[in-house]
Amino acid sequence: MSTTLRYLHHPASQPCRAAQQFLLENNIPFEEEIIDITTDINEQPAFREKYNPTGQVPILVDGDFVIWESAAIAYYISDKFNCPAHWWGSNPQERGHIQQFMNWYAYTLRLGGGAFHWTIFAPMIYGYDKDFTAEIKRGRFLLYEAFDVLENYWLKDNEFLCGDTISYPDIAASQDLVSHDAGRIIPDSIWQSHPKVKAWFDRMLARPHAKTVSTWQYENVKKVLDDGVKFDFKRKTAVLKGTEVYSGNNHGITHAGDDDSYVTQHG
Amino acid sequence: MSTTLRYLHHPASQPCRAAQQFLLENNIPFEEEIIDITTDINEQPAFREKYNPTGQVPILVDGDFVIWESAAIAYYISDKFNCPAHWWGSNPQERGHIQQFMNWYAYTLRLGGGAFHWTIFAPMIYGYDKDFTAEIKRGRFLLYEAFDVLENYWLKDNEFLCGDTISYPDIAASQDLVSHDAGRIIPDSIWQSHPKVKAWFDRMLARPHAKTVSTWQYENVKKVLDDGVKFDFKRKTAVLKGTEVYSGNNHGITHAGDDDSYVTQHG
Repeated sequence: MSTTLRYLHHPASQPCRAAQQFLLENNIPFEEEIIDITTDINEQPAFREKYNPTGQVPILVDGDFVIWESAAIAYYISDKFNCPAHWWGSNPQERGHIQQFMNWYAYTLRLGGGAFHWTIFAPMIYGYDKDFTAEIKRGRFLLYEAFDVLENYWLKDNEFLCGDTISYPDIAASQDLVSHDAGRIIPDSIWQSHPKVKAWFDRMLARPHAKTVSTWQYENVKKVLDDGVKFDFKRKTAVLKGTEVYSGNNHGITHAGDDDSYVTQHG
Repeated sequence: MSTTLRYLHHPASQPCRAAQQFLLENNIPFEEEIIDITTDINEQPAFREKYNPTGQVPILVDGDFVIWESAAIAYYISDKFNCPAHWWGSNPQERGHIQQFMNWYAYTLRLGGGAFHWTIFAPMIYGYDKDFTAEIKRGRFLLYEAFDVLENYWLKDNEFLCGDTISYPDIAASQDLVSHDAGRIIPDSIWQSHPKVKAWFDRMLARPHAKTVSTWQYENVKKVLDDGVKFDFKRKTAVLKGTEVYSGNNHGITHAGDDDSYVTQHG
């Protein structure tokens, strides 16, 4: 059994970029394996059985131990390799505050990721004839509201989200904004009315490893927006973390004509 | 400054019941303050400023330190009071696995809470003339799919979600099912096809403190279903954790005629 960590990921995925940046920031050696999430490779039963029943990346394989969920991977790495305490807190209050962020984030900023997903990738997955207006609107709503809470609460008195030193929440949240920034989802008016978020995001983006993990996304989303490039998505599930579920259905957001027998059968 | 913990909560809220059960299971002394979430008390600026910008409960006040988000409260309590290691894990693998559950849960089972919310409480909040079919369908979809992952992954080889001893995930997840069970959201066919989930839920519900924190919900939802009782909701936001955002809007799920100026202004 190899003692080298294996990191299965794809750079189009925000959670993948976040855990990868954490590995790099802490100089943890790992072998990376790109899982091409435009194909259905991670929807196959064998993949789900071996690694993750949801089929999602990122996944970390450490010998016999397999762990998925981006934040859990970073938590595990920090714990096992004794990474500096600023990442997950150095006393009960700091640690609690960081957990508070990660939970707030899961229900707000992360779900606002739909603003990017439904604008950029969804048409390639579900078809350009589909109308994603409602989904984009909901995503933008969550995103802008999350901006307000970032500005007026999390970044109110701090350089970083949970204090004056960087913690894992900064990596997780800034990688969400990388997608929105690359996809030109955030209007100037939102950046201008949230100057602390802007300054913090610029600070985060200037970190060398933030660039390393984000280059693919900026380059490829630019091709979509400026050159009309269309990725050939074989899979039919959302690529946005938190909006796909393991059976291959799209988080229950069914479009007219889509199969919903699983619901109606038990409805 | 009082040294007694203050716990602000409401028994209709799953996250409130979960953190409260955790406090009780660990014999942590606290003063409880019921925040009546049928009113707009926690939507007031003074409340948000003092405790939580999202207006949500539960909230724990420990002297000068205020912490919200149910799972973060339980994490903080366990950390500060050295609760038994089985709750959040006793080695990096166990701790990572528990974090993995809590993240998976946030994006799946917890969001399936909509099945309960949109069926039972939403009509009282938004009006009985509104059609919540799509929201209920999405909620059920997420819920049933989460049942599959609970059955075939988390509970596949264990008595409890993250191993053979109870951990915080068991409390969090079972309190979600309390709402669905009280609201009769889960059809017999789903229980029957998920026998491990059923046995685990029964095991969890048999714990004395599970009963303590759940009685209100069972009794009051029964009144709604059997006696046609209607609570007079003054607030206009969702009571479901993760589906309300701090400005008082309903998670972006706007109904025809509802205000969406915040989105259109920046759209």
